[in-house]
Amino acid sequence: MSVNSFGRLFRFTTWGESHGPAIGVVIDGCPPGLALSETDIQLWLDKRRPGLSRHTSPRAEPDQVRILSGAYEGRTTGTPINLMIENVDARPKDYTDQPHRAGHADAAYEAKYGFRDPRGGGRASARETAARVAAGAVARLVIPKVAIEARPVEIGGSAEEAEWERLLDEAREAGSSVGAVIECVVTGVPAGWGAPVYAKLDAELAAACMSINAVKGVEIGAGFGAARLRGEDNADPAMAGGITGGIATGEPIVIRAAFKPTSSVAALGVKGRHDPCVGLRGAPVVEAMVALVLADQKLLHRAQCG
Amino acid sequence: MSVNSFGRLFRFTTWGESHGPAIGVVIDGCPPGLALSETDIQLWLDKRRPGLSRHTSPRAEPDQVRILSGAYEGRTTGTPINLMIENVDARPKDYTDQPHRAGHADAAYEAKYGFRDPRGGGRASARETAARVAAGAVARLVIPKVAIEARPVEIGGSAEEAEWERLLDEAREAGSSVGAVIECVVTGVPAGWGAPVYAKLDAELAAACMSINAVKGVEIGAGFGAARLRGEDNADPAMAGGITGGIATGEPIVIRAAFKPTSSVAALGVKGRHDPCVGLRGAPVVEAMVALVLADQKLLHRAQCG
Amino acid sequence: MSVNSFGRLFRFTTWGESHGPAIGVVIDGCPPGLALSETDIQLWLDKRRPGLSRHTSPRAEPDQVRILSGAYEGRTTGTPINLMIENVDARPKDYTDQPHRAGHADAAYEAKYGFRDPRGGGRASARETAARVAAGAVARLVIPKVAIEARPVEIGGSAEEAEWERLLDEAREAGSSVGAVIECVVTGVPAGWGAPVYAKLDAELAAACMSINAVKGVEIGAGFGAARLRGEDNADPAMAGGITGGIATGEPIVIRAAFKPTSSVAALGVKGRHDPCVGLRGAPVVEAMVALVLADQKLLHRAQCG
Amino acid sequence: MSVNSFGRLFRFTTWGESHGPAIGVVIDGCPPGLALSETDIQLWLDKRRPGLSRHTSPRAEPDQVRILSGAYEGRTTGTPINLMIENVDARPKDYTDQPHRAGHADAAYEAKYGFRDPRGGGRASARETAARVAAGAVARLVIPKVAIEARPVEIGGSAEEAEWERLLDEAREAGSSVGAVIECVVTGVPAGWGAPVYAKLDAELAAACMSINAVKGVEIGAGFGAARLRGEDNADPAMAGGITGGIATGEPIVIRAAFKPTSSVAALGVKGRHDPCVGLRGAPVVEAMVALVLADQKLLHRAQCG
Repeated sequence: MSVNSFGRLFRFTTWGESHGPAIGVVIDGCPPGLALSETDIQLWLDKRRPGLSRHTSPRAEPDQVRILSGAYEGRTTGTPINLMIENVDARPKDYTDQPHRAGHADAAYEAKYGFRDPRGGGRASARETAARVAAGAVARLVIPKVAIEARPVEIGGSAEEAEWERLLDEAREAGSSVGAVIECVVTGVPAGWGAPVYAKLDAELAAACMSINAVKGVEIGAGFGAARLRGEDNADPAMAGGITGGIATGEPIVIRAAFKPTSSVAALGVKGRHDPCVGLRGAPVVEAMVALVLADQKLLHRAQCG
Repeated sequence: MSVNSFGRLFRFTTWGESHGPAIGVVIDGCPPGLALSETDIQLWLDKRRPGLSRHTSPRAEPDQVRILSGAYEGRTTGTPINLMIENVDARPKDYTDQPHRAGHADAAYEAKYGFRDPRGGGRASARETAARVAAGAVARLVIPKVAIEARPVEIGGSAEEAEWERLLDEAREAGSSVGAVIECVVTGVPAGWGAPVYAKLDAELAAACMSINAVKGVEIGAGFGAARLRGEDNADPAMAGGITGGIATGEPIVIRAAFKPTSSVAALGVKGRHDPCVGLRGAPVVEAMVALVLADQKLLHRAQCG
Repeated sequence: MSVNSFGRLFRFTTWGESHGPAIGVVIDGCPPGLALSETDIQLWLDKRRPGLSRHTSPRAEPDQVRILSGAYEGRTTGTPINLMIENVDARPKDYTDQPHRAGHADAAYEAKYGFRDPRGGGRASARETAARVAAGAVARLVIPKVAIEARPVEIGGSAEEAEWERLLDEAREAGSSVGAVIECVVTGVPAGWGAPVYAKLDAELAAACMSINAVKGVEIGAGFGAARLRGEDNADPAMAGGITGGIATGEPIVIRAAFKPTSSVAALGVKGRHDPCVGLRGAPVVEAMVALVLADQKLLHRAQCG
Repeated sequence: MSVNSFGRLFRFTTWGESHGPAIGVVIDGCPPGLALSETDIQLWLDKRRPGLSRHTSPRAEPDQVRILSGAYEGRTTGTPINLMIENVDARPKDYTDQPHRAGHADAAYEAKYGFRDPRGGGRASARETAARVAAGAVARLVIPKVAIEARPVEIGGSAEEAEWERLLDEAREAGSSVGAVIECVVTGVPAGWGAPVYAKLDAELAAACMSINAVKGVEIGAGFGAARLRGEDNADPAMAGGITGGIATGEPIVIRAAFKPTSSVAALGVKGRHDPCVGLRGAPVVEAMVALVLADQKLLHRAQCG
């Protein structure tokens, strides 16, 4: 029930503020005996710097992960895995004299907790997603036959990949930012994973994606387009997107997440470091969250259905 | 962690198959001392028959709710509330000789459980939503200052309300069905409800809506439209839809859910009773789920922040 | 997290007041395909009337269980199982004019909830345990190779079985009541069930037993006697009682629960129906709770360790 | 549901192996705005070295705690608190050539996970309790009006405090060890905390104490002695031990936990460092677990009952 955890059986709790000493994640419920090394996790953290890397934030965080517990001689032991990433490049002074940033979570935090850690958005920072990516790397070990690939399908309102570079350059030059839609295709999920009512696979995936900052919409299969189809189209597996009644059908699962443009644009005078399109960093985070949901659902399915 | 429950502190578990003896819901964690009568709940169940009632399924289920526990002399006692609705109009014979219905969850259930209850979709039936609406009626008692209103904003691909009657008639005559988009506007939620990372208000709402059968997409605020905006637009509260960083801002919360068209159309030869647009029945279910999430979040907020 | 539920994967929520219309239990997470009939459950409910039946409460409740959901043609479907027992012999008038009963939970309920259902102890009544016994009957289906046997090993302070009849007769004639110690021996639990830290098998069993009203102490293996032993005795498996480090060893598991004497004795003028030794009814409830913990732990073990 | 977590709203997850790089705990759900410093926590960690310090293990671990997240300028922020204690004195080589130790959890771990971390008992080590004591220090901040005091009331089978020094010296000289009973008295818990059925205060306390390694029995109030009393004695608050029907009465709460003697005695040839009476270290751990349960129950009560 804890509010900073996600998952039921493969459960993780991220901890840490973007400009505190470190961030990380504790994973509880990972099966024992899986091959796990810091190198495996590092690989995914490094992939957070996406292909269009010229357009991502200049923050040069090495994001070196360290396994503090739960593995022995390169294998998981079945006990909690704590992964830590030290914040070597923390520059809290950049933020302390900032007022609430329009569209940012600062005011909401203050309303909730009465006060807040003013350093770089605290928990609401995109930096917390590094911990999710690290956890996602472990989740992938639990579902070795599942392939998860996320990529932008729309940037700055354009589905034309050829336009994207120009749109991003324009946005940066204008001190602005643009949104993006990330599509994630998952293959190799066997029919039967999921649950019929409240642990529905699609509901869990929706929560997982919507829990990423800047995401304002989630679709499965035909998504909002489904509202424009007719009953006859239902026989088309593309409408279902790999899930019916909350349970995987065995077909590829297709999820899309809409990322709004960054709140803190240079035009607003914030000195911290930010991206012209946070959605570009969104793809590996979506992948990680999907991996985490699927690892959890695999264990749930195995528990109930053997 | 149970897979048929929803909520953390205000938690409900629906039970029952659409064509078994009864369906219902157990609510755990409801505060004591709230005025509760069967009449209050019945009111919301009756509202499930929406305004465009000519277009809803002819199943004449009275849906009489009975409070089996958790109330005494018209007040909640703080103990589990079990609400039961008997299935007086169950006609399982309509279904038993049916093969898997295209686009329906039948095959997924079989893949998961090895066999399935063939009567009317079992748990996957829209009938299970009556139990959610009953639970939602109790949830509303916990949040008396919150107003929740859901209504269709698109039917059969048209945002023109004047077109809807015609589109529905056409669909029924053609033995087909159409999709819908339901928008839910929530006012009166104080700034501060929600949580920063995984119990985010928007993530919970997304899961709640996506857990309704036939829903394939969920949006908060500008939703997928946000992916087409620029950073400057972020100052517009309409983009946030009442939630930033997972926490309510105090502004109205706006959620949209996309319902696909009914799977089981008359053209496919199914003898059971179905709607030409399940989305029309979706509005009260969306309201109920939103009420349930908010009741839960109110208690969570009170627990942590006093 | 719900406060009236127990278990993680095999999870049950009891509902109902002792003198309301019905009591019951919803079980979520039961594996599909298990043979389940009302007769199977009834068998265990009838066993609640223990061998020393002359000494149990004269309340002639038939305790007829009805399966409202989760089974189809004699097999579990994997969906929530709701079991209902109607309170045909409810006599609330016996209680309504009663003040708080010394040693009873009445005052504690009022302190918590502000008011209470005065009928027969409400949720605190021993009647709630019928729902646990019904749930336990389902749990046994999940662990068919496990044998669970509980019996009194001490009544009224005497370990001499030959004394028990006399002590019980004396207590009843004096309008008093006596305590008991129930011992439960479990065989057939494979080595490996359990968990190292907080879902320890012994911790779960302790919580399960202590959650039974009137239980004031729980022991595993040598229990309090272990505090009087020396390190050398540790090699004796009897000290461990079948559990080390929270995990089953494969040896028989031995649990003891201490039941205090009934609070509401005739001498205090309560007109409701009560037992001279609630501990006698305790044995089947201990068995049921142990079955529920083990079913849950089996599924947890299968989830994590395959 | 995670198996290495404890608590519902004030929830903690310990992580780390006794001879890995570090151990620690993540606390989720702590209210914001509480004064918290490393010094506060250190105080309780230092108290783990009990009064009879001559008799505790010679391991000279400084147990320096570091707050990695969840606090800002000396106050909790409401976000997850990660506390880390580095294992500066780890000597894994002492253990690697050891076979299973009789009465120890080694074999159970292997049965569960297929293999195990052989270093010093891994998670089953008493060292994990340092993380609990650190978490308990934070829990105490949530319940400032509650006083929790635990102390031995029996060592080596003797309730005579004057005997204890001699019994401990004898045990050490003989290369043996002795058990202990720890009693914890809690004052200042208001009537009403707790819950009637499965989140009963006594059930949670029993699970909390039984989750400490070496504990084989738990009692509340009169405990096993209650089984020897008569109904008339029920009016005596001492029998209840401050809890009736799972809910606090407002009277002092009295809990006793029975610790078995250490498994790994010098006579068995283990080169690692161990205590002649682990129960002596048990008192601060019992206090911490009790604080954690009460902090959680306070938040649960506030959530449901305002």
